[in-house]
Amino acid sequence: MAHYQHILIAIDFSDHHLQLCNKALSLAHHKHTKLSLCHIVENYIVSDFAYEAIGSVSVDMQDELLNSAKKRIQSLGEDLKISTENQWVEFGSSRYDIVRLAEQHSVDLIVVGSHGRHGIKLLLGSTANAILHHAKCDVLAVRLDE
Amino acid sequence: MAHYQHILIAIDFSDHHLQLCNKALSLAHHKHTKLSLCHIVENYIVSDFAYEAIGSVSVDMQDELLNSAKKRIQSLGEDLKISTENQWVEFGSSRYDIVRLAEQHSVDLIVVGSHGRHGIKLLLGSTANAILHHAKCDVLAVRLDE
Repeated sequence: MAHYQHILIAIDFSDHHLQLCNKALSLAHHKHTKLSLCHIVENYIVSDFAYEAIGSVSVDMQDELLNSAKKRIQSLGEDLKISTENQWVEFGSSRYDIVRLAEQHSVDLIVVGSHGRHGIKLLLGSTANAILHHAKCDVLAVRLDE
Repeated sequence: MAHYQHILIAIDFSDHHLQLCNKALSLAHHKHTKLSLCHIVENYIVSDFAYEAIGSVSVDMQDELLNSAKKRIQSLGEDLKISTENQWVEFGSSRYDIVRLAEQHSVDLIVVGSHGRHGIKLLLGSTANAILHHAKCDVLAVRLDE
């Protein structure tokens, strides 16, 4: 029977991230299963109505966002007994960087939250969809209540 | 810890459906987890270049396809020890009918194969993507080798 060896939990710190972690833990029933946590601080670019880039997040703000995310991941890691070397916080794009981290670290299952989508969010597509599209491993999309 | 109560395996009878079943079985580690199988025989509509419908599959052919799929599901069900009342073969559209079956039968995890997509397939989108979009429960997309 196939058991997952390395499960990566992609955290977006929505209200329901504990629900996501619980699901991942329930799949890590094999004693050799490695668990990792990642969070990508999105590099949003602000643009005007003609899609001209006005600017992105300043370097100071990047550092502040990264440090704040690192603290939250560290605290979550302690609760879940995941060592700091398996906690990755990066600045970039969730859609690409989660898949890249999974490949770099031989992850065989990515666990990601999936939010009910309607209106403009539906048009923009979801991170879970994008990961499913690009990942070379299995993806568990956990439906989070909203 | 959250365990799945009812796992639905959506089978498309690609070469790798045993890989899919194995993954689903590895998640059904709780003795009360119910497993179900479904296969949707696609109702493809043949159209010309102006997208005018020329016709769909004939009633005789529908019956033949359904009966053949039922036999395959039944044989798979025996191997996996899934009773016939939890085997559903229907004629319709995978994208909608898998999600509908999951809701009707209080499924909390749909396991579906995810194929590497490129070229025209990428443009058409995948069943796994569509299910992820519409499902009200968790979805495990199992990456199948091609």
